[in-house]
Amino acid sequence: MKGGESKYDIATHNEKINESWWLLDWLRVTTTCPHCLLHLNIYYELKSLSFLFTLPINKAAEGHFLSLSPASLFDRKTMASSSSLTLSQALLARAISSHGSAQPSDHRVSLSALSIPTFSGLKSAAPRSSTSRRRLPTRSTWNHQVRSAAVETIGTAAETSLVEKSVNTIRFLAIDAVEKANSGHPGLPMGCAPMGHILYDEVMRYNPKNPYWFNRDRFVLSAGHGCMLQYALLHLAGYDSVREDDLKNFRQWESRTPGHPENFETPGVEVTTGPLGQGIANAVGLALAEKHLAARFNKPDNEIIDHYTYVILGDGCQMEGIANEACSLAGHWGLGKLIAFYDDNHISIDGDTEIAFTESVDKRFEGLGWHVIWVKNGNTGYDEIRAAIKEAKAVKDKPTLIKVTTTIGYGSPNKANSYSVHGSALGAKEVDATRKNLGWPYEPFHVPEDVKGHWSRHVPQGAALEAEWNAKFSAYEKKYKEEAAELKSIITGELPAGWEKALPTYTPESPADATRNLSQQNLNALVKVLPGLLGGSADLASSNMTLLKMFGDFQKDTPEERNVRFGVREHGMGAICNGIALHSPGLIPYCATFFVFTDYMRAAIRISALSQARVIYVMTHDSIGLGEDGPTHQPIEHLASFRAMPNVLMLRPADGNETAGAYKVAVLKRKTPSILALSRQKLPQLAGTSIEGVEKGGYIISDNSSGNNPDVILIGTGSELEIAVKAADELRKEGKAVRVVSLVSWELFDEQSDAYKESVFPSAVTARVSIEAGSTFGWGKIVGSKGKAIGIDRFGASAPAGRIYKEFGLTPEAVIAAAKELC
Amino acid sequence: MKGGESKYDIATHNEKINESWWLLDWLRVTTTCPHCLLHLNIYYELKSLSFLFTLPINKAAEGHFLSLSPASLFDRKTMASSSSLTLSQALLARAISSHGSAQPSDHRVSLSALSIPTFSGLKSAAPRSSTSRRRLPTRSTWNHQVRSAAVETIGTAAETSLVEKSVNTIRFLAIDAVEKANSGHPGLPMGCAPMGHILYDEVMRYNPKNPYWFNRDRFVLSAGHGCMLQYALLHLAGYDSVREDDLKNFRQWESRTPGHPENFETPGVEVTTGPLGQGIANAVGLALAEKHLAARFNKPDNEIIDHYTYVILGDGCQMEGIANEACSLAGHWGLGKLIAFYDDNHISIDGDTEIAFTESVDKRFEGLGWHVIWVKNGNTGYDEIRAAIKEAKAVKDKPTLIKVTTTIGYGSPNKANSYSVHGSALGAKEVDATRKNLGWPYEPFHVPEDVKGHWSRHVPQGAALEAEWNAKFSAYEKKYKEEAAELKSIITGELPAGWEKALPTYTPESPADATRNLSQQNLNALVKVLPGLLGGSADLASSNMTLLKMFGDFQKDTPEERNVRFGVREHGMGAICNGIALHSPGLIPYCATFFVFTDYMRAAIRISALSQARVIYVMTHDSIGLGEDGPTHQPIEHLASFRAMPNVLMLRPADGNETAGAYKVAVLKRKTPSILALSRQKLPQLAGTSIEGVEKGGYIISDNSSGNNPDVILIGTGSELEIAVKAADELRKEGKAVRVVSLVSWELFDEQSDAYKESVFPSAVTARVSIEAGSTFGWGKIVGSKGKAIGIDRFGASAPAGRIYKEFGLTPEAVIAAAKELC
Repeated sequence: MKGGESKYDIATHNEKINESWWLLDWLRVTTTCPHCLLHLNIYYELKSLSFLFTLPINKAAEGHFLSLSPASLFDRKTMASSSSLTLSQALLARAISSHGSAQPSDHRVSLSALSIPTFSGLKSAAPRSSTSRRRLPTRSTWNHQVRSAAVETIGTAAETSLVEKSVNTIRFLAIDAVEKANSGHPGLPMGCAPMGHILYDEVMRYNPKNPYWFNRDRFVLSAGHGCMLQYALLHLAGYDSVREDDLKNFRQWESRTPGHPENFETPGVEVTTGPLGQGIANAVGLALAEKHLAARFNKPDNEIIDHYTYVILGDGCQMEGIANEACSLAGHWGLGKLIAFYDDNHISIDGDTEIAFTESVDKRFEGLGWHVIWVKNGNTGYDEIRAAIKEAKAVKDKPTLIKVTTTIGYGSPNKANSYSVHGSALGAKEVDATRKNLGWPYEPFHVPEDVKGHWSRHVPQGAALEAEWNAKFSAYEKKYKEEAAELKSIITGELPAGWEKALPTYTPESPADATRNLSQQNLNALVKVLPGLLGGSADLASSNMTLLKMFGDFQKDTPEERNVRFGVREHGMGAICNGIALHSPGLIPYCATFFVFTDYMRAAIRISALSQARVIYVMTHDSIGLGEDGPTHQPIEHLASFRAMPNVLMLRPADGNETAGAYKVAVLKRKTPSILALSRQKLPQLAGTSIEGVEKGGYIISDNSSGNNPDVILIGTGSELEIAVKAADELRKEGKAVRVVSLVSWELFDEQSDAYKESVFPSAVTARVSIEAGSTFGWGKIVGSKGKAIGIDRFGASAPAGRIYKEFGLTPEAVIAAAKELC
Repeated sequence: MKGGESKYDIATHNEKINESWWLLDWLRVTTTCPHCLLHLNIYYELKSLSFLFTLPINKAAEGHFLSLSPASLFDRKTMASSSSLTLSQALLARAISSHGSAQPSDHRVSLSALSIPTFSGLKSAAPRSSTSRRRLPTRSTWNHQVRSAAVETIGTAAETSLVEKSVNTIRFLAIDAVEKANSGHPGLPMGCAPMGHILYDEVMRYNPKNPYWFNRDRFVLSAGHGCMLQYALLHLAGYDSVREDDLKNFRQWESRTPGHPENFETPGVEVTTGPLGQGIANAVGLALAEKHLAARFNKPDNEIIDHYTYVILGDGCQMEGIANEACSLAGHWGLGKLIAFYDDNHISIDGDTEIAFTESVDKRFEGLGWHVIWVKNGNTGYDEIRAAIKEAKAVKDKPTLIKVTTTIGYGSPNKANSYSVHGSALGAKEVDATRKNLGWPYEPFHVPEDVKGHWSRHVPQGAALEAEWNAKFSAYEKKYKEEAAELKSIITGELPAGWEKALPTYTPESPADATRNLSQQNLNALVKVLPGLLGGSADLASSNMTLLKMFGDFQKDTPEERNVRFGVREHGMGAICNGIALHSPGLIPYCATFFVFTDYMRAAIRISALSQARVIYVMTHDSIGLGEDGPTHQPIEHLASFRAMPNVLMLRPADGNETAGAYKVAVLKRKTPSILALSRQKLPQLAGTSIEGVEKGGYIISDNSSGNNPDVILIGTGSELEIAVKAADELRKEGKAVRVVSLVSWELFDEQSDAYKESVFPSAVTARVSIEAGSTFGWGKIVGSKGKAIGIDRFGASAPAGRIYKEFGLTPEAVIAAAKELC
């Protein structure tokens, strides 16, 4: 290439960049093919630690530019002779400083990944020349340039040997911790250590001392049993949550290193994984959140939200249906910043995957709309892994699956590549053999000094990254006040003052309505005041009544919208919502289907509860009241089954005020998912219901007794509260003192004081009748051994709802008869 | 082709065929390419109503034989001049009798489907010549030849018009029934009527008067909401379960035409569908059962088991993860006789599938190892549909997905191709418009006489089919006595006499063991006496302890084996087992995973319960007792959640005898699935446990009181029964009269008489302490308001099991303390 032919065109918005010039991330350069001198505008990306350029397919196919490298584009002379050195030139100066060579990625023509030139050692070195210092950072700041982090490790043999040492450190931390616990899964960490190293040491942007820094790259270990991989990486990177003692306490009581990654135990762990397939689906949610927030808040001059989501998933995750559901959506939504590593090791617990898993994963993912790359040597092919990541980043409109073929238990001479290394300690003898095999002379849990030293830069770099971002946010805040306030609320989780005033209220004169419709009124009221509220339904939006009327659909090309269309993928939907909720404290995802189909997503709901993800489950058609669709669609045991699940709020509102109360509670309970069971059928607005009542879980809605001593207490929830009220009216006409209690949420009621509970259910009053269109299982505790629970302890039936209620004996008459037997 | 050049070589086993000659289903013929006179042995298949021939790929690629038709192979002269007419000749005579033309299917070269020559009208007509009557059936029997059923409808315009009339009959039966019920889903039946017609009228082999005939083809409407399609077809075919009145009672109380297909309500419906994705997975189970039984029982001279499984699934099913799981297995297993029609209508409830479902289903299924065919005109392309079915049958080593592009609500001028026709009645006005549009002058529910007449042959044909099969079975029974007895047991569901004697028994001196290991002893004992027992685990065979030691793996090439490898696909596994269980009354599928992962398959378990499928769920690692894997793997609420589910037996055995008892009950409960919660950890063999005790659900295992009046009753289940026993020992030492009750199955206990219940839990004894390593939800009813339930109402933790038990207070000391407070 002839010097002086290059022109640069800073197309980036650089008004406020000054000291943060390295945040500049793209520019367009007119350049020339070294072979044929063809001129072309080439779009350069400087994002994420590497140079990428986008080349028109036809040009690439003709062979132009393929051997182009940043170093060949500009030479020192150009830079030196330039009379007005600009930001882009300063940036490009980095490219001049050495001799990186082009690496056409994977023989694809549409995109070519170029490696950024390397420096001389593993530790950051200064550029060999810096001809202008006008806006160039000093040598010492250069050392802290985070974007240079990826630059370091490619190059000489010495460098590779330190990488290998780091990778073996990861392997042995996993081996040693599992050995000490005599429990755990060494196989995956041993096989995935190379990709783990590259991700945490070379690629990802994070701040070890603030694991909650908003703009961090997210990492999800979907194959959660391999958690020692993640613990080892967090340890090396300098997270306080995983110190040496924590590694030694792996899988022990109250340790921060439990048997599977748990976000609520270990800062630095984003989501809770272990149940297979959940993690990849969570990652889809994390990537959705990034894409949505970036589209809403980024400005041409300030891309305040910009991070990747990385995942490692294994054969087990790949077999799970939830993974297919979530990945189908990821492809549909074009989540280009989702990069998933598929640890293709051919071994699952039952042995070779040949016995049950012979599909073509590549082909399936191509069908799902993903970009697929195969790294054939995941054990030692560091450059292959790096190139794949670069290629993945260059593909902006599709998520990428990097199939990395690895050997499970790599390094263990007798157990590698077998199921025996999957889920139990190697045993002392094999640990020794592995130490010999990998040339590892160190004591258990030892991190060699050079490895330690190498990783030590992540703490200052992480701090710098966050500081830079904070500066960027300050600039954003000054210029875009309103957006910044919204975004801040999403980042901190602080609810806008007075938000709850938006909740609609109702009087007994308000028209009767189905609680699913009332739910929609609440959602549409709340979305005006809660910037983090977004969600949708599993292809039942018009039945679940979940559309936000002031927004369009979140889609590939309209990611700023808030109606999410999940398709008929309940399980994936739940797990995606977990990912959204755990992305930022202020995001409040809701999702919807028929209540009976919580069965499809129960594993995800349990993870919501365990991982303290505030997801609002809008579950309509909550009983036989849905009528003709019949028993396959009629929930019976579902209320009981969620009341038994820890840390879930099961709410069954009876009318408008209770529905508003349910939403208030659901939003306020920051670390608890809520399930709202809502009716398909119309229900009257009842006297005595209230938001405050709902907040207590159970409360008196009417009572004609005195002295806390009614003749009988009638208890109802949801659509049957009306029946209790009707029965009470009749009984009162006959002179009875009747209390009607709405038990809208058992969990909230359980949280109340004993005195309050006694004020609602005086122990002296044993005449109690409950009515609920669901299993009576569990009601024994409420109505006591002398009371009566009216419910349904069989499957439902297909018929008009009124008929089923009557046939099943869910009527005021039945309540009256039961009450009369008791008092 | 020159007459006399053909030679035939009867390679079939025809020893016992005589009157059942039409069961002959393949032969090899040396024939000649009409174009180039190349000689070749061609393998002819006569199965399932059509001629297929297999042609070497290279020959086909060269263009040989492609225009070959059965009629061109043999002419009357050949037949007439033959001196020794054989079975194959007799069969071939059918081919001679008219002038069908070749239809190379879908431009594929490897396999070409040839249509069997057509007859003159829709009603079966005699062959034009029958030159030899030696073993040819008479004209009247010919009319009942079932294999000729497919022959009828291809041909003249008149025929097609009757097909169209029949198809419109199906459409209007659906329209009218939904309209009358003012509830239901007309869209799918209107779009799928053509494929429905072809399946039930031309392709499938069944006996309307015995819907349970063993060797019938199975049909599953996975898109169960379109059930009016199936009801209309069953009605036309002559099933007694769906008469005109039943259609008029669609979706009404106690009708046989509920809102979704329910096998327990409507004979002719194989499985219960509606929850999306279940049906296709059930179908995989049905096809697995066929492949397994055929491999076990078919003989070279008597293929006693031979049927297809057909499915219709929609976009909704395709989005569900369970469908992907099951279809991945179907591909892996090479279930060639599974043929699935994907109703590709681009509409789901939320509108166009573009909003959430843009993946390439074709590509995904190819990746899953399926053969994929696309019928572009599913609305009127009858011949396309027929050709696709032929092609699908010709592909023997892969299941086939026939993507049929249809218009939802076809025929409705204003609502077709929109979601509005998916799930609600058309409305009187649009029904009228549709009648006009499709030229349908008839009253609601009217079946035109010619359509009725046309379909009327299925009753005699079905009877003949079954009679023929019965004759075949008699022959089989004579020759293969032992196999026939086994097969009969599978067909009838009658258990071999004395089977229960195989159950192992234990004494307190037997070694302590985990109940998961004891379960394996039971499985391996039972498989020797129960011919229908087969199953496996979701990639946890060595943890769940489910391997049958005397058998190998059920795989594509070893389908006679009984260890099924499901991979990590819990949901698919459950639904596949439902299909196996509902294939034949004597098949007893079991499946296994960790108890906590019932969450992944809960929707399938619920369908087991609802559809009365005897599946045995072997669920190990049933509590915090699994230890270090932590809360993601530790079930808490699961026991309660299944106790609340109707028609499920939840069993939690405490030791060897109770595990044997659990298996006895699980096998005997023919219409109920059982869930066995089994320990990972070792448990002692307790004194007082028994199989008989388990059969009662709850029973006294020890008691030092008299007069049914203990001081306290200690109640335990599973691994905590031991703790109750230890506490009782201590309390007795202190002089207390203590009863210990094992409450191994609440459902079985509920079935006992009041007197028995009182004998176990005397109402006078209110001092009751329960201990169970799970949620206390529901125990209130057992221990009463004065008793105490010790359990776990939080999530678990990662630590060695003993430590968690101690930290969570599940100890003899805690039981003793609670007991002392009460007595």
